[in-house]
Amino acid sequence: MATPVSPLAVKLPELPPLAGVRLGATAAGIRYQGRTDLVMMELAAGTTVAGVFTSSKCPGAPIDWCRASLAGGRARAVVVNAGNANVFTGKAGRDACAASAAAAARLVGCPAKQVFIASTGVIGEVLPHEKLVAALPALHAGLRDDGWEAAARGIMTTDTFPKGATRTAKIGDAEVRISGFAKGSGMIMPDMATMLCFVFTDAKLPAGVMQALLEKGVGASFNCTTVDSDTSTSDTVLLFATGQAKHPRVPAEGGRMLADFTRALDAVLLDLALQVVRDGEGAQKLVRVDVSGATTARSAKRVGLAVANSPLVKTAIAGEDANWGRIVMAVGKAGEPADRDKLSVGVGGVWMARNGGVVPGYDEAPVVQHMKGREVEIAIDLGLGRGKATVWTCDLTHGYIDINGSYRS
Amino acid sequence: MATPVSPLAVKLPELPPLAGVRLGATAAGIRYQGRTDLVMMELAAGTTVAGVFTSSKCPGAPIDWCRASLAGGRARAVVVNAGNANVFTGKAGRDACAASAAAAARLVGCPAKQVFIASTGVIGEVLPHEKLVAALPALHAGLRDDGWEAAARGIMTTDTFPKGATRTAKIGDAEVRISGFAKGSGMIMPDMATMLCFVFTDAKLPAGVMQALLEKGVGASFNCTTVDSDTSTSDTVLLFATGQAKHPRVPAEGGRMLADFTRALDAVLLDLALQVVRDGEGAQKLVRVDVSGATTARSAKRVGLAVANSPLVKTAIAGEDANWGRIVMAVGKAGEPADRDKLSVGVGGVWMARNGGVVPGYDEAPVVQHMKGREVEIAIDLGLGRGKATVWTCDLTHGYIDINGSYRS
Repeated sequence: MATPVSPLAVKLPELPPLAGVRLGATAAGIRYQGRTDLVMMELAAGTTVAGVFTSSKCPGAPIDWCRASLAGGRARAVVVNAGNANVFTGKAGRDACAASAAAAARLVGCPAKQVFIASTGVIGEVLPHEKLVAALPALHAGLRDDGWEAAARGIMTTDTFPKGATRTAKIGDAEVRISGFAKGSGMIMPDMATMLCFVFTDAKLPAGVMQALLEKGVGASFNCTTVDSDTSTSDTVLLFATGQAKHPRVPAEGGRMLADFTRALDAVLLDLALQVVRDGEGAQKLVRVDVSGATTARSAKRVGLAVANSPLVKTAIAGEDANWGRIVMAVGKAGEPADRDKLSVGVGGVWMARNGGVVPGYDEAPVVQHMKGREVEIAIDLGLGRGKATVWTCDLTHGYIDINGSYRS
Repeated sequence: MATPVSPLAVKLPELPPLAGVRLGATAAGIRYQGRTDLVMMELAAGTTVAGVFTSSKCPGAPIDWCRASLAGGRARAVVVNAGNANVFTGKAGRDACAASAAAAARLVGCPAKQVFIASTGVIGEVLPHEKLVAALPALHAGLRDDGWEAAARGIMTTDTFPKGATRTAKIGDAEVRISGFAKGSGMIMPDMATMLCFVFTDAKLPAGVMQALLEKGVGASFNCTTVDSDTSTSDTVLLFATGQAKHPRVPAEGGRMLADFTRALDAVLLDLALQVVRDGEGAQKLVRVDVSGATTARSAKRVGLAVANSPLVKTAIAGEDANWGRIVMAVGKAGEPADRDKLSVGVGGVWMARNGGVVPGYDEAPVVQHMKGREVEIAIDLGLGRGKATVWTCDLTHGYIDINGSYRS
């Protein structure tokens, strides 16, 4: 794909070594030529794991594999390939997962069920896992603690820039680190998570605590974003804790001592989720939709997603038109409690419509200026209750049609 | 709009006079210049009416007006303007409806509540109803029984061709006629009906019987179509029976004597609904999605709409790519019962995927040929039960972005 880098791209931050994680990438030639497409991560003994996955009823074989492995709560390795999603491949798909995990497990010296597998790319073609298995030994031998950028690049498909984030947090008096990377650009309306995202911490955390934190954090980040309303078959977010940091013991129920850790984890997840939206296929503008005054937070989120998924709203934004009438339309179609005559809509901090009608003589100049920018803010007040939510999307442009009218060919 | 006529356009059929209906159109200068934008229909005394409307929580003022008028079950006139939807216009919107209805009622000599009002066009701008009221007397004086094409053209907005359909049916030994016209091109995912559709018959039918027939017919036609997943604030389908035909009396409960009438009504509704999809903004291909093997008909319809609304499926079709992997993705995200390993997907009559994997060595040549055509057929068998549904959509092309990135400007 000769797609130019997204104008909304951000620079990959420096991702420093994180105790207990070694990473690397190689070119296994699974689909792409002349680029890395196979990534491996080795994790220290004792690493705990949490994960959330697509809600698709047609998930890929790697999703089934990870769900089963998650029951053990332990991880020693992750193997990811780009270019072939290993989805809708029947028994061949299951065999590919088992063979890949077995090969990685032999190299690391662990049970196969402590190996997590993710695949991304075209759907419905059998994954040539023998190429993957053949490339693993040299890849494993070359794993490094500074291999983060290589790993972030190796999992890209239609992505135009690599995506990473890192934060530090205190547990007791000890500092721990949380770092992660993600890929995703199209087929993005995560219902559990986005395409692929891997987050690591050197904290020592019970798997049950991690799972609860991850589900909550994903609910407010990845699950509040959409590029094109199409939920992938391969959405995966995995969180690994290597337990290498020295900090007071975290009890099985987690609790207040993880407050700062939770804040940092949520920040990493949101940072990565927004990088995915910034790399939305064809995106020229990042759009934030703040919904308030809904009957519940869940209702607010659904209204926000109805606006964020509306092709008419998204094309208007691409055309730099603050078309609040289309926003009203999208609120109305959401199926959630709404009262036309209590509804207010604003763009770029200016309320354009209030209480069922246009605001007479509102100042259009700052709105016009706001629409020309790279980041567009839409505010919706339903005027009914205290429920609120924020969702993010991008505009819908000719670039999306270009990319997706010819992806396979 | 200099949008070229849709390549999927069909010729407006000859719509012969229908006893009890006189129609016409004029240029009231409400928004457009140099074209008709105001349509009036006068109906014989005794005409009964049924209607279905948008499920939007933010409906336009004309929707509220029609819902209230429908309670009476009688209609003598319809006034429709194009260019301004009179939506989200507060008290000014309600006043515009009342004034327009009052003016038409004076001309026809009927109560205002027997006048039905519809508006289509831009949202959020106050309708200059004084222009409408001023144009009505001359329009009324010129109504004709052969004014069908003028009326069908006068209600168009981004439509690239006028849409009409007519059928005859037997009630007892008597022949009755059903004719209708519609408009719609974007903001099309009718949840009750499409943008605007008016259907007339010379049969004599109780309003309650008509309402039941209309709701059932719309459920299998307009409500099974989508252009862009955006449900309009103004969707309206009205059915009028002038009672001018001579046929045996239809009882209040309808019943078997309406079997042929129902068949013809359903055909008119489906014909008009498909014309709207054929004029979908930017459409190059008409797409039919047949879903079978679902647990229920409702579930089948939801799966069909998930496929028909998927931007990735629609852009693949635009690119003439029979990308069944994206169809699997869309089935998976629908949230309906599905089992990946029982799922089959076919395009153009060729099963490409069966029981969770690609069909080895399926014949790709006829599929490639099928995708180059104007009409694309997708078959999905969920393999679970006997529920089935058919939905229709169009592809997603650069034309859609062109039209909607600059609609207001």
